[in-house]
Amino acid sequence: MSHYIYKCFDCESEYSPIGIENSNKYLCPKCGSAKKNQPLKGVLRVLYDYSEFKLKIKRKRFLKFSPGIFQQYYQLWPLKFFKCGSTITFDGLKDSHFDKTLLNSYPTSLLEYQGESLFVFDDTRNPTLSFKDRASILVALKALQLGRTDIAAASTGNAGSSLAGICARLGLNSHLFVPEMIPTSKRIQIQSFGANLYTVKGDYDNAFDLCTEITEAKGWYNRNTAYNPLTIEGKKSAAYDMFLSMDGKLPDFIFIPVGDGVIIAGIYKGLWELKELGYIREIPKLVAVQSNKSDGVVRFMESGKFEYKPANSIADSLNAGAPRNLYMAANAVKESNGESVSVTDDEILIAQKEIAQKWGMLVEPAAAATLAGYKKMKASGQFNSEFKIMLLFTGNGLKDISSLEKSNPVPEIKSPTEWKNELLLKNRLIS
Amino acid sequence: MSHYIYKCFDCESEYSPIGIENSNKYLCPKCGSAKKNQPLKGVLRVLYDYSEFKLKIKRKRFLKFSPGIFQQYYQLWPLKFFKCGSTITFDGLKDSHFDKTLLNSYPTSLLEYQGESLFVFDDTRNPTLSFKDRASILVALKALQLGRTDIAAASTGNAGSSLAGICARLGLNSHLFVPEMIPTSKRIQIQSFGANLYTVKGDYDNAFDLCTEITEAKGWYNRNTAYNPLTIEGKKSAAYDMFLSMDGKLPDFIFIPVGDGVIIAGIYKGLWELKELGYIREIPKLVAVQSNKSDGVVRFMESGKFEYKPANSIADSLNAGAPRNLYMAANAVKESNGESVSVTDDEILIAQKEIAQKWGMLVEPAAAATLAGYKKMKASGQFNSEFKIMLLFTGNGLKDISSLEKSNPVPEIKSPTEWKNELLLKNRLIS
Repeated sequence: MSHYIYKCFDCESEYSPIGIENSNKYLCPKCGSAKKNQPLKGVLRVLYDYSEFKLKIKRKRFLKFSPGIFQQYYQLWPLKFFKCGSTITFDGLKDSHFDKTLLNSYPTSLLEYQGESLFVFDDTRNPTLSFKDRASILVALKALQLGRTDIAAASTGNAGSSLAGICARLGLNSHLFVPEMIPTSKRIQIQSFGANLYTVKGDYDNAFDLCTEITEAKGWYNRNTAYNPLTIEGKKSAAYDMFLSMDGKLPDFIFIPVGDGVIIAGIYKGLWELKELGYIREIPKLVAVQSNKSDGVVRFMESGKFEYKPANSIADSLNAGAPRNLYMAANAVKESNGESVSVTDDEILIAQKEIAQKWGMLVEPAAAATLAGYKKMKASGQFNSEFKIMLLFTGNGLKDISSLEKSNPVPEIKSPTEWKNELLLKNRLIS
Repeated sequence: MSHYIYKCFDCESEYSPIGIENSNKYLCPKCGSAKKNQPLKGVLRVLYDYSEFKLKIKRKRFLKFSPGIFQQYYQLWPLKFFKCGSTITFDGLKDSHFDKTLLNSYPTSLLEYQGESLFVFDDTRNPTLSFKDRASILVALKALQLGRTDIAAASTGNAGSSLAGICARLGLNSHLFVPEMIPTSKRIQIQSFGANLYTVKGDYDNAFDLCTEITEAKGWYNRNTAYNPLTIEGKKSAAYDMFLSMDGKLPDFIFIPVGDGVIIAGIYKGLWELKELGYIREIPKLVAVQSNKSDGVVRFMESGKFEYKPANSIADSLNAGAPRNLYMAANAVKESNGESVSVTDDEILIAQKEIAQKWGMLVEPAAAATLAGYKKMKASGQFNSEFKIMLLFTGNGLKDISSLEKSNPVPEIKSPTEWKNELLLKNRLIS
């Protein structure tokens, strides 16, 4: 018997891992569907025996774990293991597989913004410089356990460069379907890691649908975000790491950039588990931040209806005309008593600049959207200063420098003499 | 009385911190000189009372420290502190100053290369994605202690983006003098962090000399590498972190990319201290790796003479026609019984590709030079397989994607139908 089951988010049917993984299923066999330009139906969740885990590992002991190390709570990951005395052996995996993919532990930073203190959880320095490594690592380890050699994904860039890097590290083949507008740096990451790159005419939604079709025909393992439930499951590790890095004292609000809705769903899953385990009393309110040029979740929260709208934000990682994990993302906002908010591309670019100049952190536009969202909610008077606020930074600024190139033009080149005249003469005039 | 002194590397004169820091000196007041296109003379070293420290902190206790946290061995940094009971207070600094600049701890990775195991020490995910943060942090903290508000540096890019980021974080003004050929990503980092950027006609050597002159006239604090002894001192932290992350078992050889020679000098200093403290018996052999288009140290090791030669390697971080810290770098190689080796730009690019495709790490050319250097020495039969080898990776690949852009051209964009025909038809023909 396995230590986990799959349960459908929509129809609540339950499945054993054998029924799903061995038959190469990803969505619920009963109600699942992946339709063009539509959110997915029948996304699966992974569930464990929380009552057993909480008897064995009390809050105090859990808090002594180090962020980023999956093996510490091996019973809460969908990876097969055997216990032999006090030794844990993962089926088909070596210790070195984990060492190679290790996420690193970052302390949560407390930073000042206009007189207020904000917590920042920085996932921009993961192995391939984005949050997506959390999902890619779990998916790649599962592929190794299943004896699969090829993994495919559709991506606006971060999931793709992440999967390509992790696969290179673990000796797996990766296949990436990307939209034609992928930022140069992300494309170059993917190519450098030796992945198979398929640039698809059209947007992310086109790439997603094509990837699903080809991957099925080819028999590759599919890492499409939300579609493969392990993407959500891998991302829950961020909730654990927040909990550990803040010594169990989680913030009141967490601002999360939302495109497909998998990051917010994953973090909610992790927080929900921490509550199930009795480690926290209340789940922090999750704020879904989107661009108004890609706001499927915000519109769904307002109207209760999904409507496809092509996405074209400057924050490429936010672009998803059809957020594949819409229903789970909306549920995360609702169940945590959170909010959803959209910001303009201009607000995102201003926030990106502020983060760089005030905090010395160069983050990509999607990550900067969290500060823009915070400012918008703050301006509408929704926060008192007692609240503890956290921003989640999901990708490094060097992964997409095109927007930064526009706002930082090539400066004039001057000779040493010219600079001396300018800088020292100015000095003399002032003094 | 202070817990440290400055000692001239050349004439061995000793100075109290007051004599140097308060009088705004950087090089030895007796023999120091900074001449155009020449290595510096009279570079200062910082020395402590090692016999006192080793009595207090035994090897076993030191090994329990966490990598990246300067405060643990506060007596081994040139920062003023007061002890009040068991509490350490740094003069003019708050705890938050350290939190904000915190380096993160990376486990040293053991990776396979053509059947051999190599250790990799990864400094490509520091706050601004390069090794240079180690120096910038110490210099910025010292500037705060001295009450200085403006810091200047000449840089080929990494030191500059590092100083700009750390200064933004700590609320200091930064002034960067860069050569006209600075890679776009590094320039954009500097600009994004809100630094003052002065693009100088000519190469790094021009920028270095101009920076020294302007900075003196302006009364700014000078972070020029090697010139300010704290740049070497900050970089020694890597030696401590290697020691800690490897649980005291250091490798036999460490391959280090060398431009100005400050990284290798800093690491040697840290290793030398570990030996002084009785924590290690032998200092690992340091291998200085240069490009044959910027090989001032290699040529000096061979001929005993320095000759200026303009540098133009594709590995921009290695470019230094006049390695400012030449004599200390050469000493590090000699005293550690190490080697110096130069590699071609082509060898560097091949190594960069191998590192990405085999290990899933995208590093900049200068960092990749270490693998190229290892391969060259290995091919000449200088290693038996018993040796433990470590490569130091100093900068992230996304900091300079121009070389990668050439080897990874924009791929053809195809419609979903075209991809289906190509991928699935091919499949049918094969099967």
